[in-house]
Amino acid sequence: MIVGVPTASGNETRVAVVPSVAEDLVEDGHEVLIEAGAGETAGFADEDYDDAGCDVLGDRDAVFDGAEVIFEVEALGAIEGSDAGVYSEGQTVIGLLGPYDVSDEVLETLAERQVSAFALELIPRISRAQSMDALSSMANLAGYKAMVQAASELDKLVPMQMTAAGTVQPADVFVIGAGVAGLQAITTADRLGASVRAYDIRPEAAEEIESVGADFVELDVHADDAADEEGHAQEMDEAFYRKQRAQLAEVVAEADVVITTAAVPGGPAPRLVTEDAVAAMDHGSVVVDLAADGGGNCDVTQPDERVEYEGVTVFGPTNLPSTLPRTASELYANNLRNLFELLVEEGELTIDIDDEIVDATLLTHDGTVRAPHEDESDGDD
Amino acid sequence: MIVGVPTASGNETRVAVVPSVAEDLVEDGHEVLIEAGAGETAGFADEDYDDAGCDVLGDRDAVFDGAEVIFEVEALGAIEGSDAGVYSEGQTVIGLLGPYDVSDEVLETLAERQVSAFALELIPRISRAQSMDALSSMANLAGYKAMVQAASELDKLVPMQMTAAGTVQPADVFVIGAGVAGLQAITTADRLGASVRAYDIRPEAAEEIESVGADFVELDVHADDAADEEGHAQEMDEAFYRKQRAQLAEVVAEADVVITTAAVPGGPAPRLVTEDAVAAMDHGSVVVDLAADGGGNCDVTQPDERVEYEGVTVFGPTNLPSTLPRTASELYANNLRNLFELLVEEGELTIDIDDEIVDATLLTHDGTVRAPHEDESDGDD
Repeated sequence: MIVGVPTASGNETRVAVVPSVAEDLVEDGHEVLIEAGAGETAGFADEDYDDAGCDVLGDRDAVFDGAEVIFEVEALGAIEGSDAGVYSEGQTVIGLLGPYDVSDEVLETLAERQVSAFALELIPRISRAQSMDALSSMANLAGYKAMVQAASELDKLVPMQMTAAGTVQPADVFVIGAGVAGLQAITTADRLGASVRAYDIRPEAAEEIESVGADFVELDVHADDAADEEGHAQEMDEAFYRKQRAQLAEVVAEADVVITTAAVPGGPAPRLVTEDAVAAMDHGSVVVDLAADGGGNCDVTQPDERVEYEGVTVFGPTNLPSTLPRTASELYANNLRNLFELLVEEGELTIDIDDEIVDATLLTHDGTVRAPHEDESDGDD
Repeated sequence: MIVGVPTASGNETRVAVVPSVAEDLVEDGHEVLIEAGAGETAGFADEDYDDAGCDVLGDRDAVFDGAEVIFEVEALGAIEGSDAGVYSEGQTVIGLLGPYDVSDEVLETLAERQVSAFALELIPRISRAQSMDALSSMANLAGYKAMVQAASELDKLVPMQMTAAGTVQPADVFVIGAGVAGLQAITTADRLGASVRAYDIRPEAAEEIESVGADFVELDVHADDAADEEGHAQEMDEAFYRKQRAQLAEVVAEADVVITTAAVPGGPAPRLVTEDAVAAMDHGSVVVDLAADGGGNCDVTQPDERVEYEGVTVFGPTNLPSTLPRTASELYANNLRNLFELLVEEGELTIDIDDEIVDATLLTHDGTVRAPHEDESDGDD
């Protein structure tokens, strides 16, 4: 197969294929066309790709025109002003395609062109698909970086220290939401020596939270139906959230750093941290809202802005993995390659829509629009 | 005694007295006049000082005019455009007064006014003075923050991670200079999960370096005379530095993060990291040069600038403690108070120039200019 790797659009710093993965693809008998400069912002030079056996092409169109499969970072529904017209008849495209935000018009254009489009966001949560789960690998990086950024912005030291000039108490970190990002934020805060507390709507998250070094915060709200059959957080009603917010506010007020990670896939993020809760934090404290893309868990959050509110700094980064472009590209390229391997048999593209992973991720195929079929986007792990 | 605490000058965010220390001073029978807003950037409100028993004064001049002892953060030689004229006849001033940079004219003005000026930079390194050693307490914070900032800017993850999408190797951190700042940079890098190496011109630093989690880098250069009798790094000749630089370059090239901390008190910082060494680092790597104030350990460093050089980001922060204003103010206020206690007997100021600490730190007293007497600035710990 001929794989094409264009430079990612917009402010994206990641690249869909890193040299080591390109080398693997070439060893497997594939050809890799990469746009010149595609790896630059992630720290990989054209020479590195050349050494790995890629064709480095100065002409972007030549990458799109010459490839059978296009490896994207974010594309289509995931970015502003994307153009479905770059993909040619019968082409396959794999990437973070923003399945919940892609327009019907774009999907129809892709279907008309017989494009097979795989959205990595829809990878089911089953064991076999873990190595392809780009949302998890990127959420892991986001959780880490949220805490590192918070430490860098905080007005105090994170670890406890006993010095000749007195004892410094550890910073109090409060993490809301114990999914992949939340757990990694806890782990990183714990590494740095913080005193960490964490909350999740699912009571069964307590054990995992405690295993990575935080105290579980229990609220006096009914959350019996907080998780669906597959264990994912569900949207709750407004009365529940109001009660939850009031109780969370007390914990938020005591924290030096609050990291919120409560996102509902494809839906708006629940509002968990009010303006008043932020205002009650100490001057110089920091909030990092990882749900900014879905509207934010915090009232004050503005996507990709730094907001100063009553002496507290509130960040709403929507793409933290791109601030770790080297590691993020390495992990993402592995995710892509693992899905790609599922699609290739004896060197030929073989799209088997009876395969659960293929079925879940395929937005358009064989002239039809298939997805996003949200109800089936989660698996049964 | 009446203690005056003016708002620090310039971009300084620290405050010389925090509310808890103010409370201690008041309990000891002193009066504390603090300029309104002085603690704001460090996270302390006027109300907090009021609660601690201070007089919060809206008029800056009233603080200078009404106090017997002025507590400063950086002043006189330590800042641009300082004015010795703010101190009144017979007043005592304690702070980071920049003893090596203060002009003769300023010293003479102070002496004429019978001002007693204590420069905390000159605190001798003896056990009894450890609790007053502001350079150490601030260097400790600088070392911590240098590593946190580096992690925040680095293009990759610091800790090793084994994930479903592959294993991420830990970042390589190289710390040059194992004084207080260097050791804390190592400790912080180790906390974050980095693979850490460190070098110091003093071979006897190896044990300490290894005790905080780094591998000691041994160079093939003679450094027999690297430490003076008191164990402090000495200035070496140019041939020594040339050989040292060449060997360091090999270690620098392999590092993702380089933190340099080799400062010579009152002298220019040795150049240890060349332009070529920086250029040989991976794209996306980070250098933090804590010797920027003394001209930098790295060729590329510009004080308080972020420089991009051949894909590597080089920082030369000159006042990292002020980016942790809350913790820095707490520790600094303790340092100040501990020196102040040495000077007060039965509620009265008693300046005993036969005391080793007083003798070392006193720039002007009793109408005469006394310091900096550099040869005596180090003790015998």
